[in-house]
Amino acid sequence: MSARRLAVLLGPRRSGVPAYTWLADSIRQLVADGRLLHGTRLPSERELLGQLQLSRTTVTRAYGVLRDRGYARAVRGSGTVVQVPGGPVAGGGEPLELASLQPVGADVVDLTCAAPAAPPGLNRAYAWAVERMPSFIAAAGYFPLGVPELREAIAQRYADRGVPTDPDQIIVTTGALAGLAAVYRALLSRAEPAVVESPSYPNSVRALAHSGARVVPAPLVSDDLEGLSGVIRRSSARMMLAMPDFHNPTGHVWSDDERARVAAMWRAGGVTGVVDETMIDTWLDEPIEARPMAAYAPGCVTVGSAAKTFWAGLRIGWVRAPHALVGAIARARLTMDLGAPVLEQLAVARLMDTQGGLSEESRQRLRASRRVLLELADRCPGWQAETPTGGLSLWWHLPSERSSALVAAAERRGVLLAPGSLFAVDGRGLERWIRTPYALDEVSLQRAVGGIADAWADVTAPSHFAVKN
Amino acid sequence: MSARRLAVLLGPRRSGVPAYTWLADSIRQLVADGRLLHGTRLPSERELLGQLQLSRTTVTRAYGVLRDRGYARAVRGSGTVVQVPGGPVAGGGEPLELASLQPVGADVVDLTCAAPAAPPGLNRAYAWAVERMPSFIAAAGYFPLGVPELREAIAQRYADRGVPTDPDQIIVTTGALAGLAAVYRALLSRAEPAVVESPSYPNSVRALAHSGARVVPAPLVSDDLEGLSGVIRRSSARMMLAMPDFHNPTGHVWSDDERARVAAMWRAGGVTGVVDETMIDTWLDEPIEARPMAAYAPGCVTVGSAAKTFWAGLRIGWVRAPHALVGAIARARLTMDLGAPVLEQLAVARLMDTQGGLSEESRQRLRASRRVLLELADRCPGWQAETPTGGLSLWWHLPSERSSALVAAAERRGVLLAPGSLFAVDGRGLERWIRTPYALDEVSLQRAVGGIADAWADVTAPSHFAVKN
Repeated sequence: MSARRLAVLLGPRRSGVPAYTWLADSIRQLVADGRLLHGTRLPSERELLGQLQLSRTTVTRAYGVLRDRGYARAVRGSGTVVQVPGGPVAGGGEPLELASLQPVGADVVDLTCAAPAAPPGLNRAYAWAVERMPSFIAAAGYFPLGVPELREAIAQRYADRGVPTDPDQIIVTTGALAGLAAVYRALLSRAEPAVVESPSYPNSVRALAHSGARVVPAPLVSDDLEGLSGVIRRSSARMMLAMPDFHNPTGHVWSDDERARVAAMWRAGGVTGVVDETMIDTWLDEPIEARPMAAYAPGCVTVGSAAKTFWAGLRIGWVRAPHALVGAIARARLTMDLGAPVLEQLAVARLMDTQGGLSEESRQRLRASRRVLLELADRCPGWQAETPTGGLSLWWHLPSERSSALVAAAERRGVLLAPGSLFAVDGRGLERWIRTPYALDEVSLQRAVGGIADAWADVTAPSHFAVKN
Repeated sequence: MSARRLAVLLGPRRSGVPAYTWLADSIRQLVADGRLLHGTRLPSERELLGQLQLSRTTVTRAYGVLRDRGYARAVRGSGTVVQVPGGPVAGGGEPLELASLQPVGADVVDLTCAAPAAPPGLNRAYAWAVERMPSFIAAAGYFPLGVPELREAIAQRYADRGVPTDPDQIIVTTGALAGLAAVYRALLSRAEPAVVESPSYPNSVRALAHSGARVVPAPLVSDDLEGLSGVIRRSSARMMLAMPDFHNPTGHVWSDDERARVAAMWRAGGVTGVVDETMIDTWLDEPIEARPMAAYAPGCVTVGSAAKTFWAGLRIGWVRAPHALVGAIARARLTMDLGAPVLEQLAVARLMDTQGGLSEESRQRLRASRRVLLELADRCPGWQAETPTGGLSLWWHLPSERSSALVAAAERRGVLLAPGSLFAVDGRGLERWIRTPYALDEVSLQRAVGGIADAWADVTAPSHFAVKN
């Protein structure tokens, strides 16, 4: 980070405390608030003192205080680097498989997870929510449908996007997956067929299967709309799980026309669309032009989440349902949990109020990360991916069926990947595909690109064939 | 509250600010921290100025500031009464039925809910957790098994109670019910019989039924252990849901001998005991002497919760399972939600560290509330209840089969109750029983006692018979 940029973030010098205390405290605040990321190189002492008109002693002392308190460390050849005390604590990433439930080592880059670090401002939202808690701790704290102000904020977001919504249509859940699980339990009978595009986000599909449904794979809407129509007709399915806004893993966005045609299909087939909008805010170039799916299919159930817009560690999601379905979904939900925590709901309401959606700062970070990962096209001969306009992942087409072999080789090179087959709804195939999320920071992703390129060289080297065949 | 007690809570006068600012701020802090409860009468200005050696102007001004900011209000005949700004925000209580999902009016006493307001210190634990967040927001924030320090704190609690436990045996969930739902999904096949004592906590039983099990009611362990044994044998059940520590609604505690005999029954029948320990910390007179059920039945699965020990609005529970079952339960859990929020987990870890269990202050409040509710024995002829030694509820035996009629009459008198039949595992009978939780404050419960006594008079009045028969 340049001294100039840091000076802007620091703002005017606070009087009443020694200059070094102000400087150290302010940098610590920027780290706590997520504005200075773990791993960021601080400007050299000389650059900073020139910029801020401070004495060298002041800057040296402030950097010393930060190092003593664990907010910075000296790195040979890189000067002073920001860190969070003790290093970031990751829980093993978005749990695609049980294997990934254990925390990974610090030297490993975990690309099984398509969720970013928290945006600037999260800790301020938490602190704000703590201030609001006295009204809530005076009662039992159960909000099985959600805290009213969050339900209102979510309803308002839908209204702003062209789908008028009554707060009574919103049920706050502990993440999008909990919302999906409640919807499945409410609307599906045992062994009932439910259609899902393949590939899809594996946790949602697994939840569908465990709820007792018979999962029927269909082609992607953007690939073969006629094929989907046929699958719906032949399966007699009454439910379809869809992800029209930055589909995970492909990043596809349904056009206005595709939305209208799928809505017509659902109407004709008596199908309840269950629409996962988790990624809707993750646009990097421009917002999605089409309206949310509920504008085309008023009978559909929508599931949303704060995980990608704000932070996955908040564990807040929601269901938006037609009035007629809200009661059944709320009842089903009460057999799985009794409500989301009050404090997290207040923090999300605050973030919606103050930031609206994904912050421009987060978008800039994600664009930079996407740029780094796109270098794989140059480093790995034959790899092809469309540049996604949002959705946190690149979905690569490989020149040969080596997705699983690549995953194994990449792990030896210190990069964790999920194989293409994991996204196949029937768990088979997709050996020509690999997903690489760009949710991590540039520095980690540069290491990942190196590791993946080396791993790809490993699996395509003539000696590898010799061993394998 | 006496001026003396308030003076102790206030502590020494802080210098550097005007006296009225110190006084108003300190009282506001006590409210925010749950030490001064909503509805508490403050000492008169004269009493307080005598105790604190402050001028009358100071006290008057401080009370004025508190009123202006919404932390107090003048009540005719009662002087100045503490309030949380805007009044307590309740979400409709512990959701026993969908009817109770809507917030109740301020003039209604909701006795459908057996969960208390938060203990003193909760907001400090939240603030402490916010300070710890920088390490966590630097990563994606998914902890599908739980944040390590909370898993360790929970394991330590079991160890302290005589059940050595590895943190790897703990899965943190979003409340006890989410833990039960995951256990059911992991361990039960479709239509498999599962035994439950009747009466029992209805949400757990409903979750069991929705998971696809066939629910088989059994007599209470404390009533008829032989009968339970027969039900297990005849049903060929492979699972039994149990609540040996302050059973909800009866308040029963299994003795050492009963635990040993049930454990032997489970072993002999190949039954996995699923033990709900939600209430274990709510002892009012002395701690439970017997060890936790896992000490007797090492193969059992235990589900615990922070809801009654600390606060239900935290939404943190956990599963303790034998090593061999942890993987299956974790996998099942990932089809229902991807983890509990980081901040709430840190707050609970902090509360366990600083308070251990239920605070002595909370126990005192609950003892006072229990005393108020026991007055029902004098007010309602023929009502009988054992004085429970913990568990948050009185379970009354009525002299006639009028539980449902009482519930309807009480609602007209401004008191919400759950009928005995709600706790019947098969949903029938128990018309001679009513549960009255003592989780609310004394003042609310005094109103409730009056309302219930009047309602009972309503349903037992000769005219009532005339109308009904």
